[in-house]
Amino acid sequence: MKFEVLTLFPEMFDVFDYSIIARAKETGLIEINRINIRDFTNNKHKKVDDYPYGGGAGMVMQVEPIYNAVENIEKKYGYKPFTIFLTPRGKKFDQEMAKKLANIKHIMLICGHYEGIDERIMPLVDEEITIGDYVLTGGELASMVIIDSVSRLIPGVLSTNVSYEDESFYNGLLEYPQYTRPEEFRGMRVPDVLLSGHHKNIEIWRRYQSLRITYLRRPDLLKKANLSKEDLKMLNKIKEELNGI
Amino acid sequence: MKFEVLTLFPEMFDVFDYSIIARAKETGLIEINRINIRDFTNNKHKKVDDYPYGGGAGMVMQVEPIYNAVENIEKKYGYKPFTIFLTPRGKKFDQEMAKKLANIKHIMLICGHYEGIDERIMPLVDEEITIGDYVLTGGELASMVIIDSVSRLIPGVLSTNVSYEDESFYNGLLEYPQYTRPEEFRGMRVPDVLLSGHHKNIEIWRRYQSLRITYLRRPDLLKKANLSKEDLKMLNKIKEELNGI
Repeated sequence: MKFEVLTLFPEMFDVFDYSIIARAKETGLIEINRINIRDFTNNKHKKVDDYPYGGGAGMVMQVEPIYNAVENIEKKYGYKPFTIFLTPRGKKFDQEMAKKLANIKHIMLICGHYEGIDERIMPLVDEEITIGDYVLTGGELASMVIIDSVSRLIPGVLSTNVSYEDESFYNGLLEYPQYTRPEEFRGMRVPDVLLSGHHKNIEIWRRYQSLRITYLRRPDLLKKANLSKEDLKMLNKIKEELNGI
Repeated sequence: MKFEVLTLFPEMFDVFDYSIIARAKETGLIEINRINIRDFTNNKHKKVDDYPYGGGAGMVMQVEPIYNAVENIEKKYGYKPFTIFLTPRGKKFDQEMAKKLANIKHIMLICGHYEGIDERIMPLVDEEITIGDYVLTGGELASMVIIDSVSRLIPGVLSTNVSYEDESFYNGLLEYPQYTRPEEFRGMRVPDVLLSGHHKNIEIWRRYQSLRITYLRRPDLLKKANLSKEDLKMLNKIKEELNGI
């Protein structure tokens, strides 16, 4: 899978020189190309922004260098990759969207900065996306979040497929608590069932914990989750227990 | 404002060596200290993770190095900073939460990796936070999002206070479109009103655009927004117009 990132701060993407994504880049499963928008200005000062028409604080990024950069990419590949613009007014990114994007072979991300980008970049954009209801200093961190969460869904990027099939949101529930050595730490013991070696009981305990934490923290997820008859029975038990408190 | 970040990948936080946050670090408004959890293991191989009790794919981070690292910080400052654990089961981060966190002088962020952290870190944690309903390869990017969005609310970090008072979510609405030079680009012209110099009309146009895009894309935000009588009148006009299409 290929990503093209248009940004004023290409060095920020060194963040992917570590851990899981770094390995995926080395094995060629993922390719992340950074394009410095500043390289595509036509003025000698390499200026990329200017004052907003109509007044107001801050600077707005100009369209021209972005069009130039995109055309350069189009020329290189013979097509324009699926283009995402990171903006607070975009569609909310979630795990469902990550799965959809993981099926696209080539994605281009445009990172705004300062007070945003001149609205006339819109003809270039296939999808406007936001990673959440908060404001960031630029689109770079949002791009990274998308690259990271999409990349890890590409087969081979995580060491086992089980790793992501097990986890939060894959099944629409929050994850059960995890424990590792030592068995006892400062008086806190690992739950007995996890030491029992009884696989069926472990599975039941974990499902129970998942349902319980989801019910307590994110009841909205339960509505969308694919719950079995067993799950619904467990959920009723959980509700009864919690009412008893 | 001070941040302590507990992570297995401290180099990732070089991301803050650029742009606005870099300047805030230089002027001393923001301090970001990275603590490598691996420095606090007691075993000679500096191992920080182990297999999960009860089986399952992946590795789980051990509690001991994290307790050691936190105690080291406590010793240094004489107190434990407000501690955030980044996890999909946490409270959803948003601009309201960013504003609250911006009032805390010292924040510690614990970044999980692999299949998560041994549940017994919970006594250390004041707040569990998630930045959205998607899964990342670790807590690092989520920590960065929090540091970035909180830091920019600290007075002096952005060049003007107006910069963030104007923007999306500050007033509970999505932002109006921005334009900068040139006046015409490939046949696309800046809206006449923005070139008119008529401040009142520009203000009305921008408010109208904000209300319109929010109504179209995020009607949920309108319910929470503080709308004036004028706004409500405009909103009715917008609804009529859109029904006419």
